[in-house]
This record gives sequence, structure tokens and C-alpha cells, in this order.
Amino acid sequence: MTTLETMGEKAKAAARQLGACSGADRNRALEAMADALMERLAELLAANRRDVERAELSGMAPAMVDRLRLTEERVRGMAQGIRDTRGLADPVGEVVEGRRLENGLRISKVRVPMGVIGIIYEARPNVTSDAAALCLKAGSAVILRGGKEAFESNVAVTRAMQAGLRAAGLPSDAVQLVEDTSRETATQMMRLNRYIDLLIPRGGAGLIRTVVENATVPVIQTGVGNCHIYVDESADPSMAAAITVNAKASRPSVCNAAETLLIHRTAAPRMLPAIAAGLREKQVRLRCCGRAAALLPDIETEPASEEDWGTEYLDYILAVRVVDSLEEAMEHIARYGTGHSECIVTESYENAEKFTAGVDAAAVYVNASTRFTDGGVFGLGAEIGISTQKLHARGPMGLRELTTVKFIVNGSGQIR
Amino acid sequence: MTTLETMGEKAKAAARQLGACSGADRNRALEAMADALMERLAELLAANRRDVERAELSGMAPAMVDRLRLTEERVRGMAQGIRDTRGLADPVGEVVEGRRLENGLRISKVRVPMGVIGIIYEARPNVTSDAAALCLKAGSAVILRGGKEAFESNVAVTRAMQAGLRAAGLPSDAVQLVEDTSRETATQMMRLNRYIDLLIPRGGAGLIRTVVENATVPVIQTGVGNCHIYVDESADPSMAAAITVNAKASRPSVCNAAETLLIHRTAAPRMLPAIAAGLREKQVRLRCCGRAAALLPDIETEPASEEDWGTEYLDYILAVRVVDSLEEAMEHIARYGTGHSECIVTESYENAEKFTAGVDAAAVYVNASTRFTDGGVFGLGAEIGISTQKLHARGPMGLRELTTVKFIVNGSGQIR
Repeated sequence: MTTLETMGEKAKAAARQLGACSGADRNRALEAMADALMERLAELLAANRRDVERAELSGMAPAMVDRLRLTEERVRGMAQGIRDTRGLADPVGEVVEGRRLENGLRISKVRVPMGVIGIIYEARPNVTSDAAALCLKAGSAVILRGGKEAFESNVAVTRAMQAGLRAAGLPSDAVQLVEDTSRETATQMMRLNRYIDLLIPRGGAGLIRTVVENATVPVIQTGVGNCHIYVDESADPSMAAAITVNAKASRPSVCNAAETLLIHRTAAPRMLPAIAAGLREKQVRLRCCGRAAALLPDIETEPASEEDWGTEYLDYILAVRVVDSLEEAMEHIARYGTGHSECIVTESYENAEKFTAGVDAAAVYVNASTRFTDGGVFGLGAEIGISTQKLHARGPMGLRELTTVKFIVNGSGQIR
Repeated sequence: MTTLETMGEKAKAAARQLGACSGADRNRALEAMADALMERLAELLAANRRDVERAELSGMAPAMVDRLRLTEERVRGMAQGIRDTRGLADPVGEVVEGRRLENGLRISKVRVPMGVIGIIYEARPNVTSDAAALCLKAGSAVILRGGKEAFESNVAVTRAMQAGLRAAGLPSDAVQLVEDTSRETATQMMRLNRYIDLLIPRGGAGLIRTVVENATVPVIQTGVGNCHIYVDESADPSMAAAITVNAKASRPSVCNAAETLLIHRTAAPRMLPAIAAGLREKQVRLRCCGRAAALLPDIETEPASEEDWGTEYLDYILAVRVVDSLEEAMEHIARYGTGHSECIVTESYENAEKFTAGVDAAAVYVNASTRFTDGGVFGLGAEIGISTQKLHARGPMGLRELTTVKFIVNGSGQIR
């Protein structure tokens, strides 16, 4: 048996125990986990310091090092995150629907825990506690596989959470960390069908692609967002500028940030200069098609290539393309979009209807920034990721999306 | 571009057109498809005759040949099936939930078509029309890949349906059949991520395993049912016999039929002889553990091996095992079950609660035959398969499970 199979077996056993727990039991464990994180603050910070030092020595970019770094405030935030999760409504046990058949059989469709959830993620150590808390709240055991950069931090966070589980009388195997961060263990995890019920990769496009290519366990793709703002002929010019600047520049590193501006050819001469000026004020670089560049003689632009249309920059860069029609904009989105968040800025009822009906994405906006695609904003209370596929969950995923259902059928001897 | 990529591109385009259709448009097409099947009856029967002759020459088992054979009555049944699907409520457009945020944004979660659905199936030609009708009703285009045994029948059925689509003014590419039935095209189809949103294999355990092992597109596993009846200490003896005989012998070839009887050691001496007699009356062969065989000295039994516990016979064979406790029965089910349908026969409230809470399966029964796990019985109106996995759909899958959702967000210039 490989190490991962052993972990899988332990996780399955823990999941069975969790299934027999009440929501109050799980809440007690979450409270104890939050407490344990704070009690072990010094240990966590020391472990994290070793990760940060190694990262700096290896020449990691400062922005990445910052994502890796824990401070007392950040650990306090992680503990608070666990407590916030504890406070959410319990998704387990909800009777989703039910009926009584003519023959007297009573059928209920009931929300039950998924079982064992795998999470593969990259550098940030706070994902370790966030993901574990959400899975536990949803009644499932979790196998975490974080990036090697945050390894010592992840080990320390996991041990604290396991101590919390033990203190609350729950199996500590409900939260496990894969301690071998080689590529092989990641691949093994993707094929652990006997033990893993759901695998969620959280990270960049490369990670997601690798998981989709290699996994045989059920996967939910998350987070790759090549999002577009389409400024229609009839758009309100100041709204178009405000939405574009906000969607690109309010936080470029997140998946709901816009990556391409599409603008109707009759709107472009009237609106593009002001939009571009707003973007330049925020230090956004513009990669423009020929027609767009021609309308911006006074602004420094770079020529866009085919590759730009398909790139999720996650940076202060925006691709800009002039299109001849709403239909051309929608075709561009169908071709290059990743099904995350897409926006039309328009005053035309007809075009708003066409866009919302015809664009195939998790979230389609009329006259609002794509930056709103978020579990908190959408009222889910918490978010484990944003699904960009169509099965099981689409868009922001909360606790409910971490559960499954089961039909319970009560009879009195009925046969068919 | 491979043939399959071309088909995928056409299917995507057809799906986009379907997305712009109303439910009434799709219903008109379903009506025309049913009509076209009957208009082409002679052609269908002739094509099927060629398949049947080839099958007989190749020595196919008579039961299989029977599943392959079309008669006027069966074609009429297929046409009626399409009309029944037409009569179901339209799943597309349902507003699943929604809210208005404090900032005025209106968020609606709306049911929308999946896009392109792939179905890989085995011999029966009626699946061709059933599956196509359900996908079309749910607003999606479908790529069908049937077994080579039914090839000519499938071509004829598909052409009839395409004629119906054209007659109703809908794109005939909404229903396409993969005409190359080699293993390679099946594998290509499993990796057609750019075009296929959901792949559903319908067939035996071997097919399902191949798809799960090889697919990179999202898959829903269906239909493998190693179902158990557990007769508890407190079971009503006549109910135990009636349920066991019904679950095994009313239709052994289907996935909700029982394959193993587990019986509590104190119930076994009192109940097993009568249950076994009832099964033998229906020509069911019994594969027994040592303790069970010892209780049936007057009945012909065969010894069960480890392999029997994991086998879905789909035949007049039942494995029988005496267990020491409810817990042992539940462990047996956790180990060998496929998560389809599991039943406890008991008069104990406590054990019924433990079993329904602790058994991890799509449908868990108390005192009723597993044979009820069915889309029609569960009130879904139609069934594309029975999901034995936990993502997106679990248990019988109807039209709703063939759709996805999308968030539509209407604003008036909100930024974050």
C-alpha cells in the first residue's frame, strides 16, 4: 500500500466517523481548531519563517513571498476564518425534496457529506486552514496537498488543526496533509478513486490543466478567469470607463479581474480614449488591436497578438479589441473565454438579453463589474473556489457544493 | 482536424442555436422526430434486420440478439418515448434562486442547457432515440456513440431524427452519431474537452471503467449496481422473503436488482430456509458462505468465493452471507457495494436509522425492494441513467440533471 492509499483509508474511516457526528460536534471541533492555531502561534510563525527564508534564498518574486508570509495578524485571520465557517448554517441533513408514492413509499432526497475531499493547491498557507474548515463543516474528511514552498507552514497548521480535532474528540485523520510534495504524490492523488470522492485543484492554469488531464477521480475545475468587458454601442460612457477600470485594476491578481476589453466600433472613438486614460492612471498597460491603437495616438500601447486574447494576465495589463458587432464580441468570448465572468455595458435592453442568454459562463453581468463573482458577495457565506465547469457546481462554491445527496426510501414491505 | 473534432464543432454551433430556441421550438422538433421515426419504419426495420443477421451469424447470445431487435411495436414505443419526453416540463429557464444585494445588484441563478452531451452506449438501438430526445428536451446537442452491433440501426434512427429536426427548422447537427465505431473514436470522444461538456457512459461495468480511466471530459458514472439486501435480526420473516425474492428475481438483468443477501446470524436459522425456497422457485442459484450453506441442507447451493461478493451477476444468481451484526453488514456493503441501492429489512427503529445514516449509496431502503430505484418511480418523468457517483447527480437522473446553471447579474454601474 502506498502512503497515499494508507492516507486514503484513514480518511475514509474518519469520514465515516464524521458522518455519525452531529453538526454541534463538528462546530466544537472547529472552535478547538481555531483555538489550537492561536495557541501554537509561535510555532506556526517559526515554521513559516523557515519557508520564507528558503523562498527568498531561491529568488522567489517579492509578491509571491508576501503571499507565503504569515504574521500574527494573518494567523489571527485564519483562526477567525475557521470561526466564521463554524457560524455558517449546517448544510448536512437538509431534506432537498421528497414525496410519498401511491404505494406508500416515502422518498426523501437528503443532503449528506461528500466523504473524502482532496484539495491540491499552491503557495498560500491560509488555504490549508480555510479548506480544512470548510470540508469539516460540510462533514467530509480532507486530504490536503499544498505547494512545497509552504511546506513547513502547512505541516504546522495541519498539526494544530489535528490537535483541535483530538481535543474535541473527533478523529484527527479528518484533516491530513500529504507530506511528500513530489509530482508523483500529486499524480497518485489524482487517481485515488477508491478513497477520494471529489478533488478540487486551487491554483493557476497550469495546475488546473494538469489535474484535468490526469485525474480519474471526479474533479471540479476552479478559478481560471479570462474575463471580458464588452462595451456596447449604446453604453453609458462614464459607466463603461468605471466598470472597465474597476474590473481590471481594483485587484488584478484575482480570477474575476477582467483581462480583455472588447468595444463596439461605433463606441470606440467616443469612449476608448477616456477608458484608456482611466486605465493608464492605474498603471495598466494596454495590448491593442490595430483599430484600438489607432484611436489612442496619445497613449503608449503595445500591439496585441493572437496569444493575448487567450491570456489570463493576472497583472496590470489589459488586451483591447475593437469589434464590429455584439455577435463578434460574443464569438470572441466563446472562443477565448474560460467560462468564468463576462460583462456587457449597454443601455440596450435587446442586447443585454442577447448577451445574458448567449454567453456561456458561470456569471454573466449587465452593467456591473466582474469583480463581484465571489462566494461572499453571492451570499454563500464562504467560498472554496469558483467553478468554471458545468457539472455539480458553477460559479462560486460554498458549503452546499461540498456535499452530495442520497435518496432515503422508507417502506413497509413494498415490492415491484 | 479529426472527424470527431469536426463533429464537436458542429455540435457546439448547434448547441448555441438550441440555446436561442424556445421550449416550444424544441417540442416541435421532438414531435417531428417521433413522426419521422414512424415514417421511416420500413427503412429502420430493414437496417435493423441487417444488424440482427450479422449478430446471429457471429454467434451472439439470443438474449442479446433480442435486445438488439427492432419490431414495429418497438419502433412505435421509441416514437412514443420521444412524445412522452416532449410532454415533460421544460427544465431550461427555471430560476433556481436569486437575491438583490444591498448595492442594488440583482443576482439570479438560472437553469441553462449543458451545451454538448456525449453518450457512449452499447447494443440497444432504442437508447439512440431515448437519449437524443432527453438531451434535446434539455436544450443540449448530443453526440451519440453506440455499439457496433447496432450500427446500421443507429444510423437509420439518427437519420430519421435529423430529418425531424430539419422539418422543424432546427439544426440537424443537434443529434449526431459517431459512425466510426472503433475503439479509437471512443477514446477521442472521452478527451474532447473543447467540445463536450458532459459524457455519460451507459453500459456494463467494463465500459464504465474504461471511460472513468480515460476520460478528461467531465463524466457521470452510471448504472453499475452491486446491490445488497440486509435481513436484520428483527426483520419480519415474510417481508424479508418477499423483498429478497422481488429484488433478485423480478428482473435480474437490471442495475437495481439485488446481487447479495446479507442475513443476521440469529435471523438466518429462522428465515433463510424460507427465503431460499422462494428464490429456488424462481430458479435463482445460491452462492453461499459456509454458515449459510449449513442452514440449507435440503437445497442445492454453491460455495461463494471472495469474488462473488464483488460481482454484479445481472442473472438468476444470488450470493448469500451470514453476518454477526448490523455493523458487519454495513462494512460488507462499504467494501463491496457500488453505491447504487442498498436495503435493510428490519423492525428496529434504531437499526433502520443506523443503516440509512451510515450506508453511503445513491438510494438506501428500509423495508422495500431495491427495484424501485428508477427515474419514473422517483417522479423524474424520464431517466437518462442512474448515477452511482456523488458529483452533480446521484441516483436516477432526469432532465434537470442534464442541465447546468448560470448566474445572471443585473446592475446599474456597480463597481467593487
